[in-house]
Amino acid sequence: MTTYPPARSAEQRKRDVLQRWETDEDAWVSSASSDGTPCLVPLSFLWHGDRLLMATKAANPTARNLKARGDCWVAMGPTRDVVLVQSTAEVIGSSDLPADAGDAFAQKLGWDPRGRSAWVFLEFRPHRVLAWREENELAGRELMKEGVWAV
Amino acid sequence: MTTYPPARSAEQRKRDVLQRWETDEDAWVSSASSDGTPCLVPLSFLWHGDRLLMATKAANPTARNLKARGDCWVAMGPTRDVVLVQSTAEVIGSSDLPADAGDAFAQKLGWDPRGRSAWVFLEFRPHRVLAWREENELAGRELMKEGVWAV
Repeated sequence: MTTYPPARSAEQRKRDVLQRWETDEDAWVSSASSDGTPCLVPLSFLWHGDRLLMATKAANPTARNLKARGDCWVAMGPTRDVVLVQSTAEVIGSSDLPADAGDAFAQKLGWDPRGRSAWVFLEFRPHRVLAWREENELAGRELMKEGVWAV
Repeated sequence: MTTYPPARSAEQRKRDVLQRWETDEDAWVSSASSDGTPCLVPLSFLWHGDRLLMATKAANPTARNLKARGDCWVAMGPTRDVVLVQSTAEVIGSSDLPADAGDAFAQKLGWDPRGRSAWVFLEFRPHRVLAWREENELAGRELMKEGVWAV
């Protein structure tokens, strides 16, 4: 039988999630068109305030899907240290972001989409957060529900 | 300016993709319901013949989505060494898998869903394969198109 380290507490998992949001650079974004065509892409992100901020080209399926309907899943971490975030996303014109968010984005990610008309920002508000490593952490993996942290 | 290692050739990228399919354990699976609700989960896989084989519970959204419509994206690797596979998937009853595939699945993944009625196998046929590491590999990332390898 496979043995794993003991399951982390909810408090520890939340700390690990926030740490990943502060320090990780990329996430997987899973969206869908209104007719049910899925889309999965990696995008770099900034955790700013209580939102995840990303940028992509306005013509890309991710931006088009999220503009029509903001429901999506965002995943961080490797598959054995998963953070899964069910979110609603808003699409923001590349010149319409508040200055502090735009500055922080450019500083973390090393480039600045502001003013580039082909680009848009994507702002994700987490509604549900799941975090687990191995099978023994499946129980208790729900850390946020309807936008409210369990701990 | 960020500098990266030189872009890999298409031949090298294909070798790296196949190596990942042979040796990696997990993938991200992005599917959607018919009304456009996306779903993203990590699942373990076996590369068997020319298909990716996974297992999940029949009641999970991934199985339900893929049963209704098999279109999906499967991603392997970290976000800076991406393999993205547009696939069609078939859902196979847990007792309906050919013996050699079931045996190979159990041997690689250390457990055997066969005969467990709550479980189903998912069989993914790759149609389009993209592989890139950094920005300088975005050109030439399409390695398979309509089921045919470019090299």
